[in-house]
Amino acid sequence: MQYPEPISKLIDGFMKLPGIGPKTAVRLAFFVLSMKEDVVLDFAKALVNAKRNLSYCSVCGHITDKDPCYICEDTRKDRSIVCVVQDPKDVIAMEKMKEYNGLYHVLHGSISPMDGIGPEDINIPDLLKRLQNEEITEVILATNPNIEGEATAMYISRLLKPTGIKVSRIAHGLPVGGDLEYADEVTLSRALEGRREL
Amino acid sequence: MQYPEPISKLIDGFMKLPGIGPKTAVRLAFFVLSMKEDVVLDFAKALVNAKRNLSYCSVCGHITDKDPCYICEDTRKDRSIVCVVQDPKDVIAMEKMKEYNGLYHVLHGSISPMDGIGPEDINIPDLLKRLQNEEITEVILATNPNIEGEATAMYISRLLKPTGIKVSRIAHGLPVGGDLEYADEVTLSRALEGRREL
Repeated sequence: MQYPEPISKLIDGFMKLPGIGPKTAVRLAFFVLSMKEDVVLDFAKALVNAKRNLSYCSVCGHITDKDPCYICEDTRKDRSIVCVVQDPKDVIAMEKMKEYNGLYHVLHGSISPMDGIGPEDINIPDLLKRLQNEEITEVILATNPNIEGEATAMYISRLLKPTGIKVSRIAHGLPVGGDLEYADEVTLSRALEGRREL
Repeated sequence: MQYPEPISKLIDGFMKLPGIGPKTAVRLAFFVLSMKEDVVLDFAKALVNAKRNLSYCSVCGHITDKDPCYICEDTRKDRSIVCVVQDPKDVIAMEKMKEYNGLYHVLHGSISPMDGIGPEDINIPDLLKRLQNEEITEVILATNPNIEGEATAMYISRLLKPTGIKVSRIAHGLPVGGDLEYADEVTLSRALEGRREL
């Protein structure tokens, strides 16, 4: 026994988290010992509460502590537009921007035949149901700009073509504040392709 | 409200830990949601247990869940030697080595006039008491090889000179596996100074 049991258990706990190796786990565990007891108690409660009280919204798939989620329930939102994203974190990123006022649909992944993930394994069937039942006129595909995200966007756009719903994909191009010199060729070619008249 | 309350509380909890910024906290919090409930419960319990059940050994100052600690209670240890270290983690490092079989004394810091830390602010008075009452014949000073650690070692060695107890300092020199070419001048000069006849 190198560490007293309570601390070695805590170290093991930290090591289960991503990106935290043995040395960081030891450092964090010792830091916890130096924290005030009520702060540690609050943290422990937050862990259990987050795990127990959070689930995915049955409508859009966003993470929530009530069903439907606060975005689906928000009457100020434009209910005719749905933005399709891969992850609840993407919803937060969109909401932070404060320029989009429609609803969301979280896929919880992307189509990836290499990993054996097909359209049925992510939240696509629920999206189709929503489009049949709700009055949605536009779908914005905001999946990630990588191979899987592109494939997913392409798949959904082909699926929706017969329905007549307007389907758009967010623009690819140079990130604002970036430098033309350091842009990769694919991004640069997409930026050129997507040029707009001024 | 950007995140549902349970998850924003969890993110706040992670952000109180050292080296964890907002982005890592979000990543860890979402990872917790994907963990099994009993693993999360165990982690939460470990946090509270470590904080509640661990304290410092009243004899040596090492971290422990019973008093005196398992090292002070270990009858196989050589009770005539005490190794003075700055931190409980240093005790673990020494124990891992498996070549030292004496007792320890943890200072919980080092003398640092710049930060207003004097000899009375770290565990030195308790060390003197131990040396009076216990049958200790040798003190090994294993404080860190930096300015504060050296000053602390120097201070203790002067303090103990009149008592006649043998006081030694761990060696400075090139780390094993290191490269002479990349050693800094101070280390190299210390390595030369501490050369031993073969």
